[in-house]
Amino acid sequence: MKPELANVKALVFDIFGTVVDWRGSLIAEGTAWGKAKNLHLDWVAFADRWRLGYKPAMDKVRKGQLLWTRLDDLHRMILEELLVEFKIEGLTEEEKVSWTHVWRRLNPWPDSVEGLARIKKKYLIAPLSNGNIALMAHLARSAGFEWEAILGAELVRHYKPDREVYLSAYEYLDLKPEEVMMCAAHVYDLQAARSVGLRTGFIYRPNEYGNGPVGVPDKANPEDFDVVSSSIVDLAQQMGA
Amino acid sequence: MKPELANVKALVFDIFGTVVDWRGSLIAEGTAWGKAKNLHLDWVAFADRWRLGYKPAMDKVRKGQLLWTRLDDLHRMILEELLVEFKIEGLTEEEKVSWTHVWRRLNPWPDSVEGLARIKKKYLIAPLSNGNIALMAHLARSAGFEWEAILGAELVRHYKPDREVYLSAYEYLDLKPEEVMMCAAHVYDLQAARSVGLRTGFIYRPNEYGNGPVGVPDKANPEDFDVVSSSIVDLAQQMGA
Repeated sequence: MKPELANVKALVFDIFGTVVDWRGSLIAEGTAWGKAKNLHLDWVAFADRWRLGYKPAMDKVRKGQLLWTRLDDLHRMILEELLVEFKIEGLTEEEKVSWTHVWRRLNPWPDSVEGLARIKKKYLIAPLSNGNIALMAHLARSAGFEWEAILGAELVRHYKPDREVYLSAYEYLDLKPEEVMMCAAHVYDLQAARSVGLRTGFIYRPNEYGNGPVGVPDKANPEDFDVVSSSIVDLAQQMGA
Repeated sequence: MKPELANVKALVFDIFGTVVDWRGSLIAEGTAWGKAKNLHLDWVAFADRWRLGYKPAMDKVRKGQLLWTRLDDLHRMILEELLVEFKIEGLTEEEKVSWTHVWRRLNPWPDSVEGLARIKKKYLIAPLSNGNIALMAHLARSAGFEWEAILGAELVRHYKPDREVYLSAYEYLDLKPEEVMMCAAHVYDLQAARSVGLRTGFIYRPNEYGNGPVGVPDKANPEDFDVVSSSIVDLAQQMGA
């Protein structure tokens, strides 16, 4: 481990794309549900379109065009648009809620559960996500994560990359900025964390976006962040856990 | 299980006195530390005096005489008073921090870890304590609790029994009031929870106060709350977990 990382006491994690595979999970749930309902549509396009609605919805909150709205509720708003676009009709309220909550039961990447369990033996771990507390709690239960606390957007009513979220991470943990490492697959997230003094751990997730329109996976060189890793298990290893 | 409790989805817990034994833990740590430092004082009185400082300190925040101050910091303020009263001199800053953080490593009651683990198999579990997030996270790690989220005073910057704390429990969990049960050894806490519509689970803790001056253990009759139990294992049993 690099000597300057010896005083790190907590690792906080981005979740969507970094710890869980939102795209593969949405496609799998959609496909299974479509089969059961005899509903034929392009679930890959559906998944990508849902994720494409994510940033604009949060940006409305970030710019003050929308009062604080938690991510579960933004997901529901986007779902309502999707139902129109993809001409899905006749869903019961229960089915809409169940669809909205697909984000609460996304599948982890294959290394996530093992990697987090290893890291937890040595460090405090918590999500620092745009997902709200209920979403994170259910996701942890479904995927098998054992967080020590749920931090992130809802506690400060700001979405990343607003600096309030990163500041709150070390404040709530009662630590100094350099004692907390932000871990994410996304460079913008790590850059924002670094700008308030947090340590940074990059995790390469080449399959987050498939070949879809949502994005291109970020890459990093070893010198770009405090740790550059290829999985959460690799991150654990590099952090001596 | 009573039929009206069938839709309960989360149990939230008071911590100090209900899940952990603050008094026994403080006395044990004080005694051990006194021995090591060759310091002879009445650690029972010291423990009780610390706890007696708790409510007045929080009340200053509740009444607006003190801006929001988290419990770790209130504990430090009370410790400073105690050091004068008990004529303990020459502590380093590190020792003062360690003493303040004794509240982060209190021992659980014998049934707490097993009871919570059982309850978690069926319900979401979270602390709803006046303790701040860092305190709760360290305590969980030290005692072996596996919460799904940390809720409570710090998230809303109000101390129990302010109603904001109880309202926030079901709000953050995205549940209805009657889907959340407040579990505590203290009647005032349960009464405040009930006043906003939460379910209530009483846990009898006859040994919380010893025979000291801090309080007399609350008792309850079976009809006083939705569940009246003699331990967290008993509570688990009664909730079908």
